Amino acid sequence: MQGRYGYCRYDLNENPEGLPQKFVKEVLSEITPEFLAIYPEPDRFLRKYAAHLGTAYKNVLATNGSDMAIRYILETFAEQGKEVVTVSPSFEMYRVNCSILGLVHIPVSYEEDFTIKIEKIIDAISENTDIVVLLNPNNPIGNVYTAEEIKTVVDRAAGVGAIVIIDEAYHYFYPETFLKDALQYDNVIILRTFSKLFSLAACRLGTVISNPDIIRYLKKAKLTFDVNSIALLFGERILEHPEIIQEMIREEAEGKQYILEALAENGYECRSCKGNFIFVKPKHPASEVGALLAVKKRVLVHSYSNPLLKDYLRISTGSRKAMETFLRAFLEVDQREAVHYDS
Amino acid sequence: MQGRYGYCRYDLNENPEGLPQKFVKEVLSEITPEFLAIYPEPDRFLRKYAAHLGTAYKNVLATNGSDMAIRYILETFAEQGKEVVTVSPSFEMYRVNCSILGLVHIPVSYEEDFTIKIEKIIDAISENTDIVVLLNPNNPIGNVYTAEEIKTVVDRAAGVGAIVIIDEAYHYFYPETFLKDALQYDNVIILRTFSKLFSLAACRLGTVISNPDIIRYLKKAKLTFDVNSIALLFGERILEHPEIIQEMIREEAEGKQYILEALAENGYECRSCKGNFIFVKPKHPASEVGALLAVKKRVLVHSYSNPLLKDYLRISTGSRKAMETFLRAFLEVDQREAVHYDS
Repeated sequence: MQGRYGYCRYDLNENPEGLPQKFVKEVLSEITPEFLAIYPEPDRFLRKYAAHLGTAYKNVLATNGSDMAIRYILETFAEQGKEVVTVSPSFEMYRVNCSILGLVHIPVSYEEDFTIKIEKIIDAISENTDIVVLLNPNNPIGNVYTAEEIKTVVDRAAGVGAIVIIDEAYHYFYPETFLKDALQYDNVIILRTFSKLFSLAACRLGTVISNPDIIRYLKKAKLTFDVNSIALLFGERILEHPEIIQEMIREEAEGKQYILEALAENGYECRSCKGNFIFVKPKHPASEVGALLAVKKRVLVHSYSNPLLKDYLRISTGSRKAMETFLRAFLEVDQREAVHYDS
Repeated sequence: MQGRYGYCRYDLNENPEGLPQKFVKEVLSEITPEFLAIYPEPDRFLRKYAAHLGTAYKNVLATNGSDMAIRYILETFAEQGKEVVTVSPSFEMYRVNCSILGLVHIPVSYEEDFTIKIEKIIDAISENTDIVVLLNPNNPIGNVYTAEEIKTVVDRAAGVGAIVIIDEAYHYFYPETFLKDALQYDNVIILRTFSKLFSLAACRLGTVISNPDIIRYLKKAKLTFDVNSIALLFGERILEHPEIIQEMIREEAEGKQYILEALAENGYECRSCKGNFIFVKPKHPASEVGALLAVKKRVLVHSYSNPLLKDYLRISTGSRKAMETFLRAFLEVDQREAVHYDS
């Protein structure tokens, strides 16, 4: 197989191993030639999803991955030339979609200690702001915001008529959520994805949760047949198996604890994050170690040119077994191979 | 199952039965938990697809269904307030996307004998035109354009700086194509889909074929992870089985010939179309017959409010077996049930 299929993948915060084999087989066995020939129908998934969240059908929408939700929201609620405020670094798709749609991206920088001052976000919101984005937890810097912090941002945004996107892509790894509060506001949209804990990045399934007015506007902007039927089927079946969800949460937590302890034992400075990822500071230059891991070990990790992060690698976390595979490769490269590479 | 799954479907020009069971099972057996967890990679499909068409990789792009291709093209090449010329009636998504994107839809009407005057299309193109759309064959009226007719439209469009979309959704049912000519022009885009002959409407896989400059512009507008991996995998595997493609073409042609003859034998006026659909004029009011077929027989067909088509039903065609199922239900309703309904 080409591309990333032949590698151990710790670079894009996918689940390195994926859903339980037995579950996948069972869901695939439902797929018939007829099923594949029929245009998608999202309603059955959406009703189950609304029940899973404890909200109503009118509060939820499914999109072709979160990326498409971001596109629809920016297209619907931001005018050309107006501003979109995000922290920086953050998920790239916000900046990319601003560029495509002719919106002005206003990045708010982290401090050198990886904290973000909520006042700096609030100060960046002006009469020109149409959208404010909070990833909670943020990616790549895995910090989180308290409900009180979020509320101050939402209130300030409301004052200038701006929408606040709270992107909870890493929910489940981090159990707190602004969801219940969000539905009380006119201007708050929650994004979730099935690409992270639910391990379906291949399928493209994102969700939008908001008040019925915002959902109605987004439905008008969206394609009739946006999400494919296989994504909807897998989504529906996962929701019917809360024990799988719980087990995957437990596995990732176990794997993350293991790798953080193992790296510390080996003398590494690490940073635990609230999503399924951590940072580690290799002894050799991070980008070199990243390149060597790919070439010599067929192990993918994320390195950065950003000054704040350039000394670190971001490692997506998974089961203890997946973390053992990473650790072995990492130690061999950073403690042996990288030496040869330097000389 | 809810929705359209519990019906015999002849309403949206899907394949009523779908791909061969054995082929579907084989492709599904390739899908692992890891495969589902990995973000999509379209390149392998695109290289095979370019080879299948006899074009180059730089000429092709895959999108989340043709609907998304239409959206990207309109977003990229049409400015707000500018005009999009299509025949009318035609595929609804052009009109819908114009409305979403603030473009002016200019419909060019068919004659009462279901022909379209190419001069009327040319006359509708003006300095305000950004896009001209030709469905070849058109849907729902299954007429086709000659290469000469298309060239006159393309030349006129080029004169005002407009792009021409030639939507070949129903290619394979109708073997002619403008593809080779299209690549000689600066302003022509071909659209194809895997939802029709290839029977993968559930998966969402559309393709764009054009000159490298247009493909490059569209790549900039598109989401990084647009098409899901299952669609790409099925697409790739179908291309590796030309014998399946040929057999599906043969089956539909056989089914279409059968139903046209059977309806004629039963005294019905029919219209053969160049896609996988036909029109039939029921003895009772078409919309009533359509409603009765759904309620009494769980058979879905397409009826119209458009004055030109209101006396007809559009029936998607498939294998002879699928057409026999339709015929039985149709005759029972139009020759018996509809009488009771009238009374």
